[in-house]
Amino acid sequence: MPALSSDFLYSLNLGKRYNNAFISQRARQKLMTSDREATLIIAASERDANLFYATRFLAPDPFIFAEVHGRKILVMNELELDRARDQAQVNEVIPTSKIAAKLKARGARSIATADIVDFLFKERRISKILVPANFPIEYADGLRNKGYQIRFKSDPFYEKRMIKTKEEVEAISETQRETERAVAEACRILKKAKIRGRYLIHEGRKLTSEFIKQIINVTLMESGCIAAYTIVACGKQCVDPHNQGSGPLLANESIIMDVFPHSTKTGYFADMTRTVVRGKASDRLKKIYRAVLRGQDIAFKRIRDGADSAKIHEAIFQYFEGLGFKTGEMGGRMQGFFHGTGHGVGLDIHEPPRISRGRDVLRAGEVVTVEPGLYYLDAGGVRIEDMVLVTKTGCTNLTKFPKVLEI
Amino acid sequence: MPALSSDFLYSLNLGKRYNNAFISQRARQKLMTSDREATLIIAASERDANLFYATRFLAPDPFIFAEVHGRKILVMNELELDRARDQAQVNEVIPTSKIAAKLKARGARSIATADIVDFLFKERRISKILVPANFPIEYADGLRNKGYQIRFKSDPFYEKRMIKTKEEVEAISETQRETERAVAEACRILKKAKIRGRYLIHEGRKLTSEFIKQIINVTLMESGCIAAYTIVACGKQCVDPHNQGSGPLLANESIIMDVFPHSTKTGYFADMTRTVVRGKASDRLKKIYRAVLRGQDIAFKRIRDGADSAKIHEAIFQYFEGLGFKTGEMGGRMQGFFHGTGHGVGLDIHEPPRISRGRDVLRAGEVVTVEPGLYYLDAGGVRIEDMVLVTKTGCTNLTKFPKVLEI
Repeated sequence: MPALSSDFLYSLNLGKRYNNAFISQRARQKLMTSDREATLIIAASERDANLFYATRFLAPDPFIFAEVHGRKILVMNELELDRARDQAQVNEVIPTSKIAAKLKARGARSIATADIVDFLFKERRISKILVPANFPIEYADGLRNKGYQIRFKSDPFYEKRMIKTKEEVEAISETQRETERAVAEACRILKKAKIRGRYLIHEGRKLTSEFIKQIINVTLMESGCIAAYTIVACGKQCVDPHNQGSGPLLANESIIMDVFPHSTKTGYFADMTRTVVRGKASDRLKKIYRAVLRGQDIAFKRIRDGADSAKIHEAIFQYFEGLGFKTGEMGGRMQGFFHGTGHGVGLDIHEPPRISRGRDVLRAGEVVTVEPGLYYLDAGGVRIEDMVLVTKTGCTNLTKFPKVLEI
Repeated sequence: MPALSSDFLYSLNLGKRYNNAFISQRARQKLMTSDREATLIIAASERDANLFYATRFLAPDPFIFAEVHGRKILVMNELELDRARDQAQVNEVIPTSKIAAKLKARGARSIATADIVDFLFKERRISKILVPANFPIEYADGLRNKGYQIRFKSDPFYEKRMIKTKEEVEAISETQRETERAVAEACRILKKAKIRGRYLIHEGRKLTSEFIKQIINVTLMESGCIAAYTIVACGKQCVDPHNQGSGPLLANESIIMDVFPHSTKTGYFADMTRTVVRGKASDRLKKIYRAVLRGQDIAFKRIRDGADSAKIHEAIFQYFEGLGFKTGEMGGRMQGFFHGTGHGVGLDIHEPPRISRGRDVLRAGEVVTVEPGLYYLDAGGVRIEDMVLVTKTGCTNLTKFPKVLEI
């Protein structure tokens, strides 16, 4: 799924532009918390990748995680206590009730989250707190009112999350294999469909975006992968890259399928886009398709440890411009190549680094998408997306699915 | 899916205990923002129900939403601009690039989210900002550094979200119908399974938690509902109410199925739990089942506009105690009835109000679960969960699925 492109939009969405080479140094300093400083996350790990990464424990309601003097500590309510002790990769699980009982014994009449954290940190002589950028104002204000100094660190909060281990690459690849199986099933149905006038007919009915999305999502669920917001957009709909698509799919028009599920077993995402035409593509669409394919090649050749992502993005952009594929607002609509070339994939679908104007320096071990696209109201849209693993000397494509326009 | 129970855990997880009768008054005051105050949310609406509720626009990346002098304003990046103009239920969609261009013309070299918001608010003479409790520290600190006064409002940020409209009740009921279809399919397979020793055999193989979860999740996906973290737990596993279950399902033991999907069409959740035994339940398990069923009836009789949820929860708790079903840590494990009786359901799976020790006052139009449970290591676990709509004079059960222990 495409992410944003230019500087300020980028900084807008990630909160802060970051340069890996630069930040890795700064962040090392930043994460070298002093003796009086602890790391704190309060979130529901089912919706917070940093917390899941830190604990490998999934829970639907917010809980307290602290890293104090190198020890990982969870404070868990009674409902999750036993499961946390069993599953969480931490040094200690403290029952909330234990801390609450002590606070009540001291005369506390009502106990808020900040009181629990305060008790935990006072016992351990902590006065400063490091939190992720998305740390809720409610807890921040509560703890500041108690005298704690709080600073936040922008994404990537855990730098290590960017550099994937062998196991993480395998998990991403496994989700990718299931993604390819699902898109193959969609293509099989598209191929089998009969062309009647403008429409595609499948088992006597008009084939729709909704139907193909369901085929993809159900196939993925059959292998334990959850796909949400799958895109199957046709013709003019493609020109909005995040338009999920709806209604009848048309013959001889571009159909963009962008599929980005995560595995319920591992939590890791995959991300792939293919553009197909059932029937005959126009000459203009074929030209666009070839340009986007070559745009991908430009990235594949340049991606390697130490590469400046902005230069990669710019090279593709300039290649498109050179072919006459301009980008900008035309007739009140954004057209051309107006999203980033790629983004990191892992426990989040969009994570650092970005291949865009943000100047991230790529590093070996990162898994990034390569997904240039061109969108024009008079021709339709083309986006082709693979996932690659950045290596010391280049990159390894983790995507095996063929790229064919007309099917 | 069960939520937390006692006071401090409750306040821990919702940030603040709230009493509807009390807060509805306080909140009205709080939301009556002054002329100089605007409401602000910056989030990805796919993961933030308040933002989706306010805009009815789904996007995977964070964007800016402000309500200024009664006007709803979005600031959108170029990637989402056209789609937002088309789909979002707001008064105005401003392109980020427009504000950024003005800031650049004034000499800004880098532009952060806070700069964009600052520009928007300065133009509109806003100096105070009201945000939800989960507003990220990064943006809060950025805006406070620019001189804005920021206060947060605890959940429910939008009180109206608690009182469901007719359309919202229909959307929840629709998701519930699909949930029932999926659990019916699971029961069909359980019933058909042959009992061989301790195990259940389906098409020559041991029936597992994983297999039944997949049946449920795939059936739901076929109707456009996404079920994540579905629980199919058996025997001792049931004693951890959030344990999703794994491995072979056993004959003559409790199997808890807790299913809580949301619709991809409407975004609304449903939530249902059934406990079954394939084969013969022990006498003790039957007793527990009857107690839990009657526990539900206690709630059904008491739920109505104005009811004190703490009294409902306490009545069930005392009923269980009276039957000898004690709650507490036994042999190092929490056993008995150690979660809340129910919680609100809507665009979030766990939302206000809670039926627990938190003293929420129920109001007509709220949709809440009723899900008492009893869990013992020597017998297994039983939880039975329906969703009801609170009315002026009582409640309407939105769940139609039968309750049968032995199948």
